[in-house]
Amino acid sequence: MKTLPLLLIIFAFGVTVSQSLVRNPSLFDSIFSIFVSDNEIHSETPALPKSLDPGPPPHEEAARMARYVTHHSDWAAMATISARNPIKGYPFANVFSVSDGPSMALSTGIPYMYLTPLEMSVHDIKENNQASLTMSLAQGKYCDQKQYDPEDPRCAHIILTGTIQTVAHGTKEEAFAKDALFSRHPEMTDWPKDHGWFFGKMDIENVLVLDFFGGAKTVPVEEYFKAKPF
Amino acid sequence: MKTLPLLLIIFAFGVTVSQSLVRNPSLFDSIFSIFVSDNEIHSETPALPKSLDPGPPPHEEAARMARYVTHHSDWAAMATISARNPIKGYPFANVFSVSDGPSMALSTGIPYMYLTPLEMSVHDIKENNQASLTMSLAQGKYCDQKQYDPEDPRCAHIILTGTIQTVAHGTKEEAFAKDALFSRHPEMTDWPKDHGWFFGKMDIENVLVLDFFGGAKTVPVEEYFKAKPF
Repeated sequence: MKTLPLLLIIFAFGVTVSQSLVRNPSLFDSIFSIFVSDNEIHSETPALPKSLDPGPPPHEEAARMARYVTHHSDWAAMATISARNPIKGYPFANVFSVSDGPSMALSTGIPYMYLTPLEMSVHDIKENNQASLTMSLAQGKYCDQKQYDPEDPRCAHIILTGTIQTVAHGTKEEAFAKDALFSRHPEMTDWPKDHGWFFGKMDIENVLVLDFFGGAKTVPVEEYFKAKPF
Repeated sequence: MKTLPLLLIIFAFGVTVSQSLVRNPSLFDSIFSIFVSDNEIHSETPALPKSLDPGPPPHEEAARMARYVTHHSDWAAMATISARNPIKGYPFANVFSVSDGPSMALSTGIPYMYLTPLEMSVHDIKENNQASLTMSLAQGKYCDQKQYDPEDPRCAHIILTGTIQTVAHGTKEEAFAKDALFSRHPEMTDWPKDHGWFFGKMDIENVLVLDFFGGAKTVPVEEYFKAKPF
């Protein structure tokens, strides 16, 4: 019975952290010094078990829905403009493992990725860093369980559009991105050392949510970052 | 014990059909007259239960892998160039339910979709019908069961690039697209009648397969259509 108050404290703290980050992303350095000692923050992360997933929020709350889908998606389709023949100039999409934080309490809404210059889409981004990230509840069990077709708008999905940026090396944000990704994608630790991996993120300019009948909703970026993913 | 020979016959027949279609797509009219009486081909379709899914083919056989992923994906992320402000010109991706045939035996390799002019990506396509369709085994249970990260190349995924075409109204191909989609997405039958739905397909120009370490493989389009998805 003692776990509930503790969880509420963790939730509240996580929300404060993520809201502060939105208002002032440079707070990463000061805030994450609470958790971070150099590049290892695994042990300090108050991870919430997946079994505590409360399910998606009500469809009317589109900003919360967007944050929920971002946080609960382990991967995204990233659309870029192809820089490579024979499909140069065509829209292209590829699969990337993503994470916006190691736990719901530490969800930031910022999709982080682990990228290598060898990757096709990274070639695209070097020429034009405009991109979209598409994530759907169809990726998990929710839509199957509800018997929603993947294209049914109630099988909520979101499209985040913006530019892909490199997370600066040696920063607290890089340590956070590393923990966010490696904790949810443990295989990444073993990916080939000679591939020049770096951490990337989307600088979100537009948030589209499809979570009910009646067409897509645009969520103002500020509302997206202010919302809670649970 | 009598079912195996029957299934083999259905398999063999399906392969012959799909290969013939590749060599001469206009054969739709003659070949599908075997199955089709007007717009209703449900009852004549020799559907194979999903439990007969043999799993993905060996990774060395990239064309078969591409056909396997296409057939087994119930949805795709379709990348387009956005025609709409404030993200006009940005790459965009959206979720579409797809089907390349109602059963493995009738897999054509052609991804069909059920589209409405109201849809955001259809607005994009009207201005520029270049597109990519991205499908991944991460969408099903395979990668989870194998403990492959969604970005692990062994969690096979494909990117089909080309143009989106309208399936001509009243043709045998339209009847096939309808059966392919409605049999695998039964909810479509009930989608709003006033949305101007039509059947679309990708005219594939480029096939990329990521199914193992060492980078993406390009599969010649002809090989893709000749391959078996099982």
